[in-house]
Amino acid sequence: MPVSAKARAGILITGTEVLTGIIADRNGPWLSERLRAIGVDAAMIEIVGDRPDDVLGALEHMASQGMSLIVTSGGLGPTADDLTAEVVGRFSGREMVLDPALEERIAEILRPMMSRWPGLDADAIRVSNRKQAVVPQGATVLDPVGTAPGLVVPPLQTGGPTVVVLPGPPRELQPMWEKARATDAFKAAISAATDYRTGVLRLFGIPESEIAGTLRAAESAGLDLEALEITTCLRRGEIEVSTRYEPAAEAAYRALAEFIRERHRDTLYSDDGATVDDQVANLLAGRTVAVAESCTGGLLAARLTDRPGSSEYFQGGLVVYSNEAKAALARVDRALIERVGAVSSEVAEALADGARARLEAEIGIGITGIAGPGGGSKEKPVGLVFISVTSSDGERITRMVQLPGDRSDIRDRATTVAMHLLRRLLSGQESARGSRTGAGVG
Amino acid sequence: MPVSAKARAGILITGTEVLTGIIADRNGPWLSERLRAIGVDAAMIEIVGDRPDDVLGALEHMASQGMSLIVTSGGLGPTADDLTAEVVGRFSGREMVLDPALEERIAEILRPMMSRWPGLDADAIRVSNRKQAVVPQGATVLDPVGTAPGLVVPPLQTGGPTVVVLPGPPRELQPMWEKARATDAFKAAISAATDYRTGVLRLFGIPESEIAGTLRAAESAGLDLEALEITTCLRRGEIEVSTRYEPAAEAAYRALAEFIRERHRDTLYSDDGATVDDQVANLLAGRTVAVAESCTGGLLAARLTDRPGSSEYFQGGLVVYSNEAKAALARVDRALIERVGAVSSEVAEALADGARARLEAEIGIGITGIAGPGGGSKEKPVGLVFISVTSSDGERITRMVQLPGDRSDIRDRATTVAMHLLRRLLSGQESARGSRTGAGVG
Repeated sequence: MPVSAKARAGILITGTEVLTGIIADRNGPWLSERLRAIGVDAAMIEIVGDRPDDVLGALEHMASQGMSLIVTSGGLGPTADDLTAEVVGRFSGREMVLDPALEERIAEILRPMMSRWPGLDADAIRVSNRKQAVVPQGATVLDPVGTAPGLVVPPLQTGGPTVVVLPGPPRELQPMWEKARATDAFKAAISAATDYRTGVLRLFGIPESEIAGTLRAAESAGLDLEALEITTCLRRGEIEVSTRYEPAAEAAYRALAEFIRERHRDTLYSDDGATVDDQVANLLAGRTVAVAESCTGGLLAARLTDRPGSSEYFQGGLVVYSNEAKAALARVDRALIERVGAVSSEVAEALADGARARLEAEIGIGITGIAGPGGGSKEKPVGLVFISVTSSDGERITRMVQLPGDRSDIRDRATTVAMHLLRRLLSGQESARGSRTGAGVG
Repeated sequence: MPVSAKARAGILITGTEVLTGIIADRNGPWLSERLRAIGVDAAMIEIVGDRPDDVLGALEHMASQGMSLIVTSGGLGPTADDLTAEVVGRFSGREMVLDPALEERIAEILRPMMSRWPGLDADAIRVSNRKQAVVPQGATVLDPVGTAPGLVVPPLQTGGPTVVVLPGPPRELQPMWEKARATDAFKAAISAATDYRTGVLRLFGIPESEIAGTLRAAESAGLDLEALEITTCLRRGEIEVSTRYEPAAEAAYRALAEFIRERHRDTLYSDDGATVDDQVANLLAGRTVAVAESCTGGLLAARLTDRPGSSEYFQGGLVVYSNEAKAALARVDRALIERVGAVSSEVAEALADGARARLEAEIGIGITGIAGPGGGSKEKPVGLVFISVTSSDGERITRMVQLPGDRSDIRDRATTVAMHLLRRLLSGQESARGSRTGAGVG
């Protein structure tokens, strides 16, 4: 289902520490999303090390593939292996020149830092400072957010790509991206951008192959999918169907969304881009929640407090790893643990009740399970997790799930299942009184 | 500081969901690390969407850059946009053929899934099944870990790259990587691999520019850095100096490590690859720890329980967002909160003491701060965090830090500072009785 893209961009991430997996790249995906938002198709993300030949090779590859814009991240720091500005200068055929105003600007930025770190090597700082102020002639300099300036380097000959050079740390790159967008050179490079729309459908509780079947059925039913660029993917135990299309295909997208909604009414939970975290945050307005978690060890509390303003509804959490902690903090009956085991629906419910009572919240969530790799048995294998959500109105949803993956996957997926149970309880989709335990796959 | 690489590999990540930032790629860094471990230099990681032309273009680019091995991830699923096997077939000039044994093997794998998900579309499953069993002629098939088989596709002509085709989900890709390595085609492709060694130094509490200065000083002092490939990077508030070298350069690396150790005795905490998490886990053997956290909202508990076996020493945690929870759960004196404010060294210490007492642990950690974006003031700006670690022996370390970045950075960095304070207390490096509060940067 091809969509003709008029402006294509390449994203070049430099840095041996990213290439070798020492740190994870967050800039590639972020820049790709931002480019799409302004109608530019990010056709490739390439990661190379701090070797001039590899950086130059990547720039030339992207130019040869017809990119009208290249955005680079990294390699603007003070150390000798930071060489992006110089290589981009060579690539675009522009001489490197010292920008005295920029040198002074960087010195100004470093001054307070030097007073905060007594005993710094002043010469080292001065050398770094000067190095960062040498830029390709004719480039637009973007004011530093940290200490490194960014650059927008237009092509010397028409037809070549414009290169936007940004620093590696995401908190410097992201504000600087907005500055880059405002430059004339940038605007010229993306003048052919297409106005794309994106629709996202989120489903929870079905396998990916079901969606593949639905898309085939939609085609058989005569729906026009030609103008839609559809991608389906598994993300933290959920399925996301993301569709990009030009405005003229709006009706085709609406028909597809309706078709999927009809077939997957029980599992489609979002058609407006909202995540389960967004929905839960909205549903919790004016209410309060508390958690008591064992195998997830604090991850559910961390997820619920991830967003600003969560203190409005999040009362607190208990991380009760040991049986003693379950009894002492969440007031789970020791005899109950003895009788049914710590990993059981009964203990999940007691944890939810305990969290609610101890933290004086309206809603309580309890999680207990076996995250592995050890501790599993034939009856209670690794990945078995019980989750319960209860409210002060006497509503209660309890689920047993068998989660796939390693320790980290299991812990993460368990929080996703808990978010969905919480969502169901809050939205009144399910309000069975008393206990319900059903098998499911997350 | 170039190192001649004899075997170079390219990593090709396919999938529009990765290219567009819907999901983060974990396979590129993982494969890069594994390749380095067997002496193969990963020279580039390229991410492209599910478009045949872009996948083919990337393969041809890598071949033209002299890669002897290309590892792909993704595009092996059941949906129509999963097309890697076919494109690799075209790239290597091999016809696509149905492998009946493989078809039966996949059917076998799907059978239990079909019984677990009643109401699945059996036809859809069959079509997907067959699609996944069509492979390039002459390829070595790697048994599926999920439902998708992997492939090792040798070049038709000598000189071309061998392509290893792996599925996208990390929990399928990772075990399949080991199977791929065992094949003859793979071994032939990396016959020129170099035996590299890697040394990692980790420092906490200094800025990156200091390390740049130290490396220049090492060169001035006559150390031979020519044979060392040194990368420095900031990672979760720490500095990592990673050096790769051939065995002949062992003495040069040792001299460099010693030089850095001399200059940064106070901040270098690891020279054997161990992270602060590793060190803390070892130091906690035979002891017990509990936490009470406010602004980190469960992240410190989650970090401490991240590794298998942590139940041996982790007693439990309190996530005390509200002042009521701080008083009720961690027994922080309400009058104290009134007097000095919830974000203060006194409350951090009371939280540490409260965690220890309530969870009957030897060591308690308390964290309170302002993660933002709201809630800051001139006296207590966003990023201000107080952390205290106390022990039942009366040892106590308390620190005030002003952390940079956004809410998520601040929460994450605060856990890093806490891990380092815990490490210092456990290793007896610091055992000030009573309170000590000092400014620092994380």
